[in-house]
Amino acid sequence: MIPRIGTGVDVHAFAAPESGREMWLAGLLWPEEVGLEGHSDADVVCHAICDALLSAAKLGDLGSNFGTSRPEWAGASGEALLVETIKRVQAAGFQIGNVSVQLIGNRPKVGPRREEATANLERIVGAPVSFSATTTDGLGFTGKNEGLAAIANALLIGS
Amino acid sequence: MIPRIGTGVDVHAFAAPESGREMWLAGLLWPEEVGLEGHSDADVVCHAICDALLSAAKLGDLGSNFGTSRPEWAGASGEALLVETIKRVQAAGFQIGNVSVQLIGNRPKVGPRREEATANLERIVGAPVSFSATTTDGLGFTGKNEGLAAIANALLIGS
Amino acid sequence: MIPRIGTGVDVHAFAAPESGREMWLAGLLWPEEVGLEGHSDADVVCHAICDALLSAAKLGDLGSNFGTSRPEWAGASGEALLVETIKRVQAAGFQIGNVSVQLIGNRPKVGPRREEATANLERIVGAPVSFSATTTDGLGFTGKNEGLAAIANALLIGS
Ligand SMILES: [Zn+2]
Ligand SMILES: [Zn+2]
Ligand SMILES: [Zn+2]
Repeated sequence: MIPRIGTGVDVHAFAAPESGREMWLAGLLWPEEVGLEGHSDADVVCHAICDALLSAAKLGDLGSNFGTSRPEWAGASGEALLVETIKRVQAAGFQIGNVSVQLIGNRPKVGPRREEATANLERIVGAPVSFSATTTDGLGFTGKNEGLAAIANALLIGS
Repeated sequence: MIPRIGTGVDVHAFAAPESGREMWLAGLLWPEEVGLEGHSDADVVCHAICDALLSAAKLGDLGSNFGTSRPEWAGASGEALLVETIKRVQAAGFQIGNVSVQLIGNRPKVGPRREEATANLERIVGAPVSFSATTTDGLGFTGKNEGLAAIANALLIGS
Repeated sequence: MIPRIGTGVDVHAFAAPESGREMWLAGLLWPEEVGLEGHSDADVVCHAICDALLSAAKLGDLGSNFGTSRPEWAGASGEALLVETIKRVQAAGFQIGNVSVQLIGNRPKVGPRREEATANLERIVGAPVSFSATTTDGLGFTGKNEGLAAIANALLIGS
């Protein structure tokens, strides 16, 4: 029962409003928002959690698991990547203790959907997940509405 | 005795020198410094710790606990928010294992008061706290003296 | 056997190409890259791990352990600082559970050498280390090729 810690940061730029890109965050569609750039759905929340879990389990990162050398994962949704990440972490003999993830940026306003998003992440992860949000007081690329960042920590209970 | 991890980032912009704003960090007044912008004392260190603790305990975040929908907390000090956060975390059945927080930015110089600030945080938190600091080599908003960031991790021992 | 968590962020600016600075990351030379600015080898990966370990063990930070008031460490390599950090953490009665570190920036491409770098870090640390990498989609100082950041989390098993 040795615990293992992992951390992951993910960043995506906002798409142009005329792009028609959908915003997906925490596995949910945010229909009133302009989306983020990326080959996939650019779900920074799911991506940061994937990287934190993979790192805690010593299974590499998003790039080594699902990157350009794995074309079968091209364009996969954040939820799909997170589902597969969980499978790989469990196959490596770990249980997920909990996950803490924070979205950093100006929009969307997370408050009204924080519980829904948390419940969705817990459905996917199968363990306690906390989903929080903060802004950066107008500073940096998140403060200037250029994009969103997410930072996740994961705790695994080892085999 | 299942451990729980939580993470939190907080950012505030420096106020204009002529604003007369006081700088509060780690629950201490830094009298030779210009303060940070914010409705409260803008104590990024206490705020990041609050968010890490709330996230670890699955109790939401600063916004959901003390935000605009909770006007009784408007303008509360970072120490007051941290005291109340600890109460809520303990009421939820958790003990605090330890907290690690890093201040990111150019000023104040933390070194001469690092032990005092650490002791103050441990007095408030009632568990081991580490308070460290780093700069960003002139890069980003912290490097350009636009503001300060703090990143905190918390480990709870579950009920 | 109480676990302790620690976190550390480190940032260095890229040196000018004509500087001839070598790039050192994760204790390895990256011969095709221009290096980072700094009095030392500017190994952000080793530095972030040092800060995370020192914080978890309540032993201060890079500045208080190896800064300007400790001239015997001036110019020490990231590996040398990490070796000494491990000694101090162990002398304080802690075992290292695991370390998770993520490099944030555009270059070098970590993928081809990720396993080599991970093995090198594990050789130094003597415990499981995960080394991952991400980019920031062109945003912020890491996206604009101004420098590199690393974020590390460490878990210690207490005395
Ligand atoms: Zn991503
Ligand atoms: Zn704040
Ligand atoms: Zn450094």
